[in-house]
Formats: sequence, structure tokens, C-alpha cells
Amino acid sequence: MPTAARILVIYAHPAPHRSRINRRLAEAAGSLDGVLVHDLYETYPDFFIDVAREQALLEQAELVVFLHPIRWYSMPSLLKEWVDSVLLPGWAYGPGVTTLRGKGYWLAVTTGSPEETYQTDARHGHPFEAFLPPFEQTARLCGMQWWPPHILHGANGASNEAVDTHVAAFRARLEQFLDTTRRASAHGI
Amino acid sequence: MPTAARILVIYAHPAPHRSRINRRLAEAAGSLDGVLVHDLYETYPDFFIDVAREQALLEQAELVVFLHPIRWYSMPSLLKEWVDSVLLPGWAYGPGVTTLRGKGYWLAVTTGSPEETYQTDARHGHPFEAFLPPFEQTARLCGMQWWPPHILHGANGASNEAVDTHVAAFRARLEQFLDTTRRASAHGI
Repeated sequence: MPTAARILVIYAHPAPHRSRINRRLAEAAGSLDGVLVHDLYETYPDFFIDVAREQALLEQAELVVFLHPIRWYSMPSLLKEWVDSVLLPGWAYGPGVTTLRGKGYWLAVTTGSPEETYQTDARHGHPFEAFLPPFEQTARLCGMQWWPPHILHGANGASNEAVDTHVAAFRARLEQFLDTTRRASAHGI
Repeated sequence: MPTAARILVIYAHPAPHRSRINRRLAEAAGSLDGVLVHDLYETYPDFFIDVAREQALLEQAELVVFLHPIRWYSMPSLLKEWVDSVLLPGWAYGPGVTTLRGKGYWLAVTTGSPEETYQTDARHGHPFEAFLPPFEQTARLCGMQWWPPHILHGANGASNEAVDTHVAAFRARLEQFLDTTRRASAHGI
């Protein structure tokens, strides 16, 4: 029997054929044993989400990764529909609810503009961190552990070397998590 | 010939039959001459947005209102799809683009939880203002004028009096805008 995926990567790219970086991140993750890459735009092109299926995927995961390009300082709309539909009160959060408690949450995103445009008085008016509270607090309300996000700014103009480094770091962090949880599991922790 | 609407209210309630407050705000706005209330979930139940139509509505408006309940510290998914689809580069923003420049942008939202839950160390971890940058910066990138948001916290438990007051203030602010722009127009400003 194949081992259940310990890492669930929720991949949401509204135009995957034009993806240069997110697709590579998805492929790198998908090549690892113990990782399930779940492509939302491929699975739900009509935006009609199978809530029970999504909840079952979340239940078995130890780490949940949101992998997507930033769209308008936030997540793509289908991922928002996923959040709105799947993270229901009484299941994801609320008094006595423990479904997602203690699972890791990792945001892996790209932005089109370079980092220096995310500043007061620059094009995007705020440091990028100012746009993170909706993500962070969504994870926290469900009792998940917020990991420092994995961000590549300036995706549009990123060099191949920068992309390679970013993908390698993503993969290495996932591998490290899998190794750690495997060891913990082998020792019955 | 009827006057074109000066105020465009983009109304986005994912469960309008369960709305107690947003529906009243929509009705109050819709009763005013010069306001068009555009119900996104009624118009686009399949999430397939007519971009040209939406852009035409935006072009004729002087004030754009987003009217919706807050969902997961952000906008409902269909409104996000609207933002992602309609506010295109080269039309809504970018070098030399002036389509939306100078129009007002007003966020009118409700939250389920009371205001005191929006604090560090409280349920939602941040003051509510920490969740506004994505809205604010979306408006600003398009050159729109950010109005102080019209917020009703604790919608679930709000008294009828609090709702009445909130609706009346919403309507009064819209009327004031219509009066001002009418006068300015009459004087050829």
C-alpha cells in the first residue's frame, strides 16, 4: 500500500501554460515520495470544489503548502474559493475543533515585481509583509503552524540561476521535513 | 435618456439569502438615483465574468464601492475573480493608463466577529486594519482615491439599531457624494 502523502501542495496557477517558476516548483515537489501536488485549476476548471475530497486530503497531510503566484496582493480566485468552501466552521476551526491543529502551513509564492517595489513610496506602497496577514491568520485560526514564507520576487525578470536556487531551496526544505517526520515516525514519537 | 450611474456598487454576497446587513446596504444604495448596484453572485453564478461589460461599467462610474462580507480576512472568491479578470494591465494600470485614475474607491464590509477580536493576542491576531493593504493597494495601483472604509464589525450579533445606523450612514455618504458631484457638474467644474 502506498504511503499517504505527508505533504499536500495546493498548486493554484490561473495560467499554468505561462508559468515559468511555479510549474518548476510543483514538479520539484511532485518528484518527492510523500508529497502530493494538487493542481486546483486543473482539477476544478469550473470552480466547483469537492469539499469532502479536499477535507480528506487535508486530514492526512502533516504540512500544507500553498503554491501560487501572487495576484493582486493576494491568492488567485480559485484558491480563495477553496479556502472559503473547504475551511468550514466546525471542521477547520471553532470551539473544540482540532482537525488541522499542529499541521504546518507554508506559503510559497512568486511576485511579478522586484522586491524594491514593495516599499512605502514605491509602486506597491508597502513592504510585502504587509500583505501576509490574511494568509497567516487563516492558518493560525485553524491552529496551523505558520512557516516563514518561501518567496521569489521579480519572477518576471528572474535569472535562470535565481530560479534554480529558489527551486532547489524549496525542494530541500520539503525533503528535510520528510526526513524529520520519517525519523520521528520510526521512533514512535 | 437616463443619466448614467455615477456610483457603481459591486455587491458580492456568496449566500445572499442569509444576508441580514449587506442586503439592506445594497437596497439602500439601489434606491438612490445615480447608483447602480451590481450583484456579482446573481450575475455570474458560474464565475464566468464578462470582462468588457465590467470594464464599461467601471469607466462610467465616478465612485466604485465594494460591498460584501469579509471572508477569511479578505473578499469573497467571486469578487477576487472579478478583480483578477477585470483589472487588467494596460487597462486598469500601467504606464500612461488613466482609465480609473481619480475615481473614488470605497470598501463597505461586515465582519462576523466583534471588533475586540481584531487585536494582537485576540482571536484574529491583528487589528482589522492589518487586513486592508490588499484592498487599499489594489485601488491605489489603479490611481483610485481610497476612502476610509465603512465597516460593521460583529455583524452576527449586531442590534437592529446598530444596523439601522450603519445603513443610514452608508446611504447618507452616497447621497452626499451624489449631491457634490451634481453641483460640481452643474457649475461645469
